[in-house]
Amino acid sequence: MKRLLIIGIGAGDPDHLTLQGAKAIAAADVFFIVDKGEAKEELVRLRQDLIEGHGRRPYRIVEARDPERDRTAPAYAAAVDDWRSRRAQVYEAFIRDELEDGQTGAFLVWGDPGVYDSTLAILEEVLERGHVAFDHEVIPGISSVSALTARHRTSLTRVARPVHITTGRRLAQEGATADDIVVMLDAHCAFAGVSDDFHIYWGAYLGTPDELLVAGPVAEVAGRIRELRAEARARKGWIMDTYLLRRVPPADRR
Amino acid sequence: MKRLLIIGIGAGDPDHLTLQGAKAIAAADVFFIVDKGEAKEELVRLRQDLIEGHGRRPYRIVEARDPERDRTAPAYAAAVDDWRSRRAQVYEAFIRDELEDGQTGAFLVWGDPGVYDSTLAILEEVLERGHVAFDHEVIPGISSVSALTARHRTSLTRVARPVHITTGRRLAQEGATADDIVVMLDAHCAFAGVSDDFHIYWGAYLGTPDELLVAGPVAEVAGRIRELRAEARARKGWIMDTYLLRRVPPADRR
Repeated sequence: MKRLLIIGIGAGDPDHLTLQGAKAIAAADVFFIVDKGEAKEELVRLRQDLIEGHGRRPYRIVEARDPERDRTAPAYAAAVDDWRSRRAQVYEAFIRDELEDGQTGAFLVWGDPGVYDSTLAILEEVLERGHVAFDHEVIPGISSVSALTARHRTSLTRVARPVHITTGRRLAQEGATADDIVVMLDAHCAFAGVSDDFHIYWGAYLGTPDELLVAGPVAEVAGRIRELRAEARARKGWIMDTYLLRRVPPADRR
Repeated sequence: MKRLLIIGIGAGDPDHLTLQGAKAIAAADVFFIVDKGEAKEELVRLRQDLIEGHGRRPYRIVEARDPERDRTAPAYAAAVDDWRSRRAQVYEAFIRDELEDGQTGAFLVWGDPGVYDSTLAILEEVLERGHVAFDHEVIPGISSVSALTARHRTSLTRVARPVHITTGRRLAQEGATADDIVVMLDAHCAFAGVSDDFHIYWGAYLGTPDELLVAGPVAEVAGRIRELRAEARARKGWIMDTYLLRRVPPADRR
């Protein structure tokens, strides 16, 4: 049987890797990497450092080019579905051509493989296609949500209260649907549209030397976040950021 | 200055510890442990194993008894507030009496310190009281949410869709308020009350040798989860479990 490990490597700090993740990297014969052809060289390098630091030789690294995704399509979910299916063909080829029975292949996934990452769904699709068979195991990782709240030394959850995790797109469309909201994948600063009683805890490039953190009442800090974000994005060519919005009762504001 | 590290140690598997967490344990002079006087000896032992495995001698372990919490009070949040204030006095005494300037104290927290854990809020209260001063840093950990979805090899989030994290109490009161819901702190199997179009991914004692996992349509597996849960709780004297509820459109059911 062929075996796959889907390893969460954390949100940017190489020390976010768990002991379980390090052991999983050491157990892999082949690492599958999809090259996004983007400017995120630092991320590629960090992943390579983890493989070099924890991999057990001899291992192989197999790379493929990511299928193009139509980022202009109005139907976001449909465009993602289409891209996923083409990515499934890439993964199927990886497993069919590059992994022998008895060998272990690994996918290194930023953050936690369960949080807005497509690797698991794509591998499900590969299994459903039925052309290759494999066992797979998921190694949880530090999500950018955990990294964000840790860096701000705040809790994701308040006592006995719920929290909502959503996307920038939805926040822009639906507004604030809860008192505690984590927003991911927001390219358009949707936080600027929420009401003044929210506090924001924002972070970019979490866990890396370029990390940026801003916290405060949305009304006071939204402008500064916008500026910082635009400047960093222009300078580095990419940005990954996330934030927590928390409705604070007037009496608790300081 | 006195320094505190609040270290997330993961959801039960000692290998959930991150490299950052292992280094933080090695940096601590004093470990503060609150003894809950409960039957969770295995959890206490696992924490001790982590200190022995990663701590750098000489270190000290300082223990105190947890203040009683009124678990029969109808006002849950008020009862927690009261207990927190008394716990803040315990922490204040730890920091005042057991930690010298220039030393580092550590709190080891199950899962992630941001997810339904009170340590950060209690330390905030200690700072507000103003009797002791300290710097503190939070080390993120693998939450039981990440451990749960990893063990079920499923994603927390679906493409472009939100997820709701809530408590058993709220699920029982409010019903299913989203299509993807993570439920924690549920002592009363509130999942049994959701509609038949939900799928459940349930896990108990995640990451430990006693781990229990059940997945399937709620209508089919709710009874089995109830039985397993009651049996395990009676045998071990305690249970920690969590689950993901996912509404599945009829077309996608298999």
